[in-house]
Amino acid sequence: MLRAEDLDALLVTDLINIRYLTGFTGSAAALWVAAGDGPEEKATVLCTDGRYRTQAAAQVPDLRALIDRRYGAALVAHAPAGRAGFESHVVTVDGFDKLAEAATDVELVRAPNRIEKLREVKDDSEVLLLERACAAADTALAALIETGGIRPGRTEREVARDLENLMAEHGADGPSFETIVAAGPNSAIPHHRPTGAMLAAGDFVKIDFGALVAGYHSDMTRTLVLGSAAPWQQEIHELVLTAQAAGRAALAPGASLKNVDAAARDVITAAGYGENFGHGLGHGVGLQIHEAPGIGSTATGTLLAGSAVTVEPGVYLPDRGGVRIEDTLVVRPDGPELLTRFPKELIVID
Amino acid sequence: MLRAEDLDALLVTDLINIRYLTGFTGSAAALWVAAGDGPEEKATVLCTDGRYRTQAAAQVPDLRALIDRRYGAALVAHAPAGRAGFESHVVTVDGFDKLAEAATDVELVRAPNRIEKLREVKDDSEVLLLERACAAADTALAALIETGGIRPGRTEREVARDLENLMAEHGADGPSFETIVAAGPNSAIPHHRPTGAMLAAGDFVKIDFGALVAGYHSDMTRTLVLGSAAPWQQEIHELVLTAQAAGRAALAPGASLKNVDAAARDVITAAGYGENFGHGLGHGVGLQIHEAPGIGSTATGTLLAGSAVTVEPGVYLPDRGGVRIEDTLVVRPDGPELLTRFPKELIVID
Repeated sequence: MLRAEDLDALLVTDLINIRYLTGFTGSAAALWVAAGDGPEEKATVLCTDGRYRTQAAAQVPDLRALIDRRYGAALVAHAPAGRAGFESHVVTVDGFDKLAEAATDVELVRAPNRIEKLREVKDDSEVLLLERACAAADTALAALIETGGIRPGRTEREVARDLENLMAEHGADGPSFETIVAAGPNSAIPHHRPTGAMLAAGDFVKIDFGALVAGYHSDMTRTLVLGSAAPWQQEIHELVLTAQAAGRAALAPGASLKNVDAAARDVITAAGYGENFGHGLGHGVGLQIHEAPGIGSTATGTLLAGSAVTVEPGVYLPDRGGVRIEDTLVVRPDGPELLTRFPKELIVID
Repeated sequence: MLRAEDLDALLVTDLINIRYLTGFTGSAAALWVAAGDGPEEKATVLCTDGRYRTQAAAQVPDLRALIDRRYGAALVAHAPAGRAGFESHVVTVDGFDKLAEAATDVELVRAPNRIEKLREVKDDSEVLLLERACAAADTALAALIETGGIRPGRTEREVARDLENLMAEHGADGPSFETIVAAGPNSAIPHHRPTGAMLAAGDFVKIDFGALVAGYHSDMTRTLVLGSAAPWQQEIHELVLTAQAAGRAALAPGASLKNVDAAARDVITAAGYGENFGHGLGHGVGLQIHEAPGIGSTATGTLLAGSAVTVEPGVYLPDRGGVRIEDTLVVRPDGPELLTRFPKELIVID
C-alpha cells in the first residue's frame, strides 16, 4: 500500500492503529512502518517510553523498540532519508511542529485513515474475538432475564450494573461502552444514560450494551416490555423488527452504504414513522465501538466483505417510549454472519 | 485573558474544556468564546448537531446554539472579523485545514492549553464534587473490607468488580478509571490490570481506584496485607507512608513542582529504594483523571492555591511486591485539604 503511494514509510501515531498493527497496548507510543524489508536501518520500529520497555518486548518481540519520550519525533529524527506519510487526521497542529522540527532528512506527507481502511476488513482472528464479545453479551442478557433481574421496582442503574457484572462473569474484560438501560418514556431517548428511574409495569425497557474482549467490542440492543404489551408497543416493535430484517438482508459486499440504510429506513417511512428514526442505521465495530464504515442516508462508499457492522433501526415516540433492535454482523458473500444471537422477538416479562 | 493576548475570541474544540466552560456534556461540539460582551453577533456561541439540540438548550440555556455538523468550521464561518485563538494542541492537521478554509474574515492564532490552565484552579463547586467522589471511594473501600470482600481465594478481578459496585451504591456515577487490584508479586507492577490471580495469605494487596461524580474524578491507593505482615512488608509500607507524609507536607501555593516531588522522593532514596520508585509523585485531578499540574522530578512551574492533586509515592520490589499510598488533596495557603480520608496505616486482614 505504501509503495503504491510512493511512500518509504508511514508514521503511525494513533494508539489503536498501533495496537492493530503490532499488538502493543501501552498508553504512549509511535510506530514507524517501513515500506521496504531491507537492512536494519530501514526496518519498522516501535517507540515508547521507559514505563513500557518490558511490555513492548513481551507484546512486540519481533520489532526493534526505541525508548524515547518524544515518540513520533524521535522516530522521524532517527529515520533514513525519504518520503514518510503521517496520520494528519490524528496529529495535532502543535504535534506536527515537533515532527517537522525533527524531520531533517524526511519529507512528511499527509496520509490520513490508511490503517482505519485496513481495519475495516476483519480477519478470522478478529472475528473470533468479536464472536466472543457478542457471546458474552448474549449470555449475560439471558442470565439477567432468567434470574429476574428485569422487573418493576428496579432502577435503570441497577439493571445496567447487573448486566455489566454478568458480562464480566461470562468472559468480558469490561463493558464495551456505558450500558444503556432506558425504561418507559426514557426509551424514547436514543442514547439515554441510566438513572435512578424505576422500571414499571407496561414499560418498554430498551437495553443497548456490549462486551469488550481483548480489545474488540460487541454492540447489541434489545427492547422488552414489562407486564403486558399495549397494541402501540406491539406495533412499533414489529415495525422495527421488520425494518431491521430488511437492513440485515441488504448487507452484501459491494452494497452501497446509502442503500443499506434505505432498505431499513424505507420500511419505517412507509409506515409513517420516518421522522421517529433520527439516526443512521449502523456503524463498523472492532477495536473501536464506532469505526468505519458509517451506514447512513448521507454515507458514500460501499460495504466490504469481512467488515463487521451493526444494524440498528429505531422508532422513538417522544414522552411515550421507543424501540431499537440492533445486531452486530459480519458482511459475507453468502449472506451476513450474525454474531449477536439473542432472540429479537418481543419478550414480555410478567 | 483573551483581551490581554489581543484576541477577539477563542475557538474551543476540546470537549472537556467545553464542558468546563458551559456544562455541556454532549459528544460533539465546538464553542466560540467572544472576548467582548457586545452585541448579539459578537456573542459566545455553542455549536453542536441535531442530536443534541434539546440537551444544549437544557444544559446551556444562556448561550446561543448553532446546529451545524461542521462544528468549529461553522463557528469560524459565522464569526465577525477579528483575531481568534484556536486550541493547537487539540486541533488536528486535517481539522485545521477545514477551519482555515472557513475563516474568511478570521485570523486564526495558536492558543494551546488556555482553558487547561484555568481548570488547574478548582472553585468551591468543583471541590464539592471532588469531595463527593472521594467520599464514595472511601465509603466503598471501608464497606468492602467490613464485608470480608478482601480475603484469600478471591481473584483480583472479583475484588475490583465489588469495589466498583460499592462505589456505585455510594453515589458514584462509575469508576474514574479501570480499578487496579494487584495481589502478591503483581503489586510490584505499578499499573497492573486485575487478572484471575487469587489473593493469598501473606500477600500485599495494592488497590488503586476512584469514583466519578458529575464528571469529577477521585484517585486513591491503599496497600493492605493478608494474614500477617512480614518484616520487609512492614518496612517498605512504613517507608512509603513517611515519604507520602513528606510529599503532602510540601504542598503549598508557590511551591516548585520539582521540590514537592523531591520532598517525598528523598525519603525513599535515603532509605536505599530510590530505584524502586520509578514514576512521578503526582498529578492534577478534576474533569480528567490526569490533568495539570504534573508533579515529578523534571516538572517545571509551581503549585497554585486551589489546585487538586494526588500525592502517590511507591516502592516496588520486582517479583516480591510493592506499596503505593495515594491521596487526592487540594492545595491551600494554610496547608493541604485532604479529600481521601481512608486511613493510611498498614491494615492487616486476618
